[in-house]
Amino acid sequence: MSNKPTNPKGTRDFNPLTLQRRRYIINIIRSVFLSYGYNEIETPSIENRSTLYQKYGSDGDKFIFNIINSGEKIRKADISSFNNKKFNDFISSISEKGLRFDLTVPLARYVSQHQNEISFPFKRFQIQNVWRADRPQKGRFQEFTQCDADVVGSNSILLEYEMLQLFSDVFKKLKLDNVRVRINHRKVLNAIAKKIGIKDNFHEFIILLDKIDKIGIENVKNEFKSKFQINNEIDKLFELIINKSSANNYLEVLKNDYLSENDKDLINELELLIDMTEKNKDLLEIDYDLSLARGLEYYTGLIYEVSMDSMSEIGSIGAGGRYKDLTEAFNLKDNSGIGISFGLERIYLILEKNGLFPKNITIGNDIMVINFGNKYISNIAKNINQLRLAGRKIFVYPDNIKLSKQFTYSDKNDFKYVIIYGESENEKNIVKVRNMFSGKEEIFEIENFTKSFLKK
Amino acid sequence: MSNKPTNPKGTRDFNPLTLQRRRYIINIIRSVFLSYGYNEIETPSIENRSTLYQKYGSDGDKFIFNIINSGEKIRKADISSFNNKKFNDFISSISEKGLRFDLTVPLARYVSQHQNEISFPFKRFQIQNVWRADRPQKGRFQEFTQCDADVVGSNSILLEYEMLQLFSDVFKKLKLDNVRVRINHRKVLNAIAKKIGIKDNFHEFIILLDKIDKIGIENVKNEFKSKFQINNEIDKLFELIINKSSANNYLEVLKNDYLSENDKDLINELELLIDMTEKNKDLLEIDYDLSLARGLEYYTGLIYEVSMDSMSEIGSIGAGGRYKDLTEAFNLKDNSGIGISFGLERIYLILEKNGLFPKNITIGNDIMVINFGNKYISNIAKNINQLRLAGRKIFVYPDNIKLSKQFTYSDKNDFKYVIIYGESENEKNIVKVRNMFSGKEEIFEIENFTKSFLKK
Repeated sequence: MSNKPTNPKGTRDFNPLTLQRRRYIINIIRSVFLSYGYNEIETPSIENRSTLYQKYGSDGDKFIFNIINSGEKIRKADISSFNNKKFNDFISSISEKGLRFDLTVPLARYVSQHQNEISFPFKRFQIQNVWRADRPQKGRFQEFTQCDADVVGSNSILLEYEMLQLFSDVFKKLKLDNVRVRINHRKVLNAIAKKIGIKDNFHEFIILLDKIDKIGIENVKNEFKSKFQINNEIDKLFELIINKSSANNYLEVLKNDYLSENDKDLINELELLIDMTEKNKDLLEIDYDLSLARGLEYYTGLIYEVSMDSMSEIGSIGAGGRYKDLTEAFNLKDNSGIGISFGLERIYLILEKNGLFPKNITIGNDIMVINFGNKYISNIAKNINQLRLAGRKIFVYPDNIKLSKQFTYSDKNDFKYVIIYGESENEKNIVKVRNMFSGKEEIFEIENFTKSFLKK
Repeated sequence: MSNKPTNPKGTRDFNPLTLQRRRYIINIIRSVFLSYGYNEIETPSIENRSTLYQKYGSDGDKFIFNIINSGEKIRKADISSFNNKKFNDFISSISEKGLRFDLTVPLARYVSQHQNEISFPFKRFQIQNVWRADRPQKGRFQEFTQCDADVVGSNSILLEYEMLQLFSDVFKKLKLDNVRVRINHRKVLNAIAKKIGIKDNFHEFIILLDKIDKIGIENVKNEFKSKFQINNEIDKLFELIINKSSANNYLEVLKNDYLSENDKDLINELELLIDMTEKNKDLLEIDYDLSLARGLEYYTGLIYEVSMDSMSEIGSIGAGGRYKDLTEAFNLKDNSGIGISFGLERIYLILEKNGLFPKNITIGNDIMVINFGNKYISNIAKNINQLRLAGRKIFVYPDNIKLSKQFTYSDKNDFKYVIIYGESENEKNIVKVRNMFSGKEEIFEIENFTKSFLKK
């Protein structure tokens, strides 16, 4: 055992101040979700591996934390798989459960399991921790908090619009400027792939687009050209990607060059959405961005990614999209959904760097009572109780030690007030209160101390 | 993969109502902790096994969830240990981390790791989940929430008293009657064991006492007699245990029969505590109970256990005690602490069985807007926004489906109000609001709808 215990790499301890600041963000996100009629649920940290691996298959082993079966079950370890280097099978033989890596798989499992108790459309939000066995690095953690809102069981375009409202309300309440939502549509990407003749390589197309943020647009363009022998089409597409377009321009280009009569529903949907967003001046800036792909996620419709212009190095602070088949794997079909997620850890970083946490978030130290001995504490116990009932936070210093040491403690911990009641105060029937910020002392008669102090 | 996904045995999904009720309890506990000047921290769910096993040694394997090392590390599995049935060593070779099983070991690790940032006495509370690989059974879960308050770095008897205040304030705020705190003192048990001549069997003594709740007092007494050949002493002790005594009687008996001049400090301490508690009429009932032992926990001083007279089958709903050596294993010596824990899951059960959750805890469904088509929604979008800003929760039904179906949804989900604004309302420039509980409809002019509605 180590003599210097530490928290594991990739995890964090939250001291009182950090925790209060995280709660500030969470409370804003929660209040916005609630104001749109989402209800909060919680699911267990642990899910069956059969549930978790439904989404990623054996690739999941790379980032799922697997839990060793307890008790006698360890005897069932499949050693021959180990010897044959079939490590996935070996792990399966000793692990039935794992820690959830997102809140979407648990949502799909929840909706499928409780479908008879739920009325659809089902609007839920969930703010809980998830775990990923990624290699820990700066700003990337093995345990972190996700804040998700989803609607399952409706195809309405009003929800595509509502997701934009949620993003806008949250980031405006957090007083973040220059936040921008990029949107695109999986069906648009499909149509483009089809039009330029790489429909059968759709996966590869998505993965390449997704690399733009990492390796730059020119490199991606070159990779495209070397993979698919269609230089003209690619030049044209990348011109569109580079010249990020307004909503109407995006639609115009799509209609002219990539979409056909068969895509009437898609065009309709985009027109409706653009119409709604243009009318609402309270929304964040929206970029219609043909390069947005959102990786190998399960999205089938509109996709979103939110970031801050001035802090693009931090990456996306929100994302989401529409998905069609999320619960299909769990035997619940035709259940379209849409959802978004806020990245708490990155939002925290941004608020911190920009000094945007409200000044009144402190560790909450309010009043300290100097300890002159049990007798004196006992004499003002009733007052202390009354102040607590009135919502004040009172720390009674537990030990009767030197006054100077007690004041040092109070200084270190930023108490606002110190209550002084010792021998001489007792004789005079008074209580002294020192304001630790101004240094001023005020004297109260003991019999009406609580009332008078609370009036201040 | 199973077609019927479920949450793992021993874990739970929390629907919106259950979650709100859990929050109600947590908020009361949090507010009481805060009112005594405790600050909240959070620690990671995952700790190094070297930290976790510090407390329980290899016994921990019985109830610690161990996490398999990710990536290539699985290759280091110690197969020869497995073959030799040394399963603990086998697990150690593939697992460096585990899920915490309480909040006390993380506290000890936190205090030791951050000792230079903390000022002592350190008053912290923590409300987080813990995991135990116990066999799941009714009322016993593998993932559950603990609510702990601790003070580290002070020996003051004021803290023994403060723990009683915390228990009392929380259970009174929860409106629970007939809650009783049993207290005893580890040093008293020590003195008794010494006096009756079984000092060297102190562990066994504790374990036997602890079995009273399970197998009954007579059986324990007989076990005592067959283990230790001191029938007279045991008869005498059990007479005291059976006749649960008042504070002063407890002290009197101890002074007469078990404590000597050497125990002056202990007697002093008990006298002080009894004096303080007798003065405070706001405390829960206190039983001085010589049979309370608190198992093999790390306690070294006063111990507490809280239960409800009328629901003793549910067991303890709070517990705690003073410990001397908690951080010693982590290289931080002479750091006495004291702490208590509230059992959220059992408190929940009791409030539920006794109908003690406030009636105003609902799933929080407030207002639903009937969907007559995007055009109409769009017309009253401004009003909806204003109501949201004013703190109202508004669910816009996403699909323009049959009115009756929308009302069915609203009924099922207990919305208080339904906003009706369709073609005829649009023509008349009015908005209708139906109170879903009374069935009454009210009509507002659209131009001052928000204001008038909010005034109601």
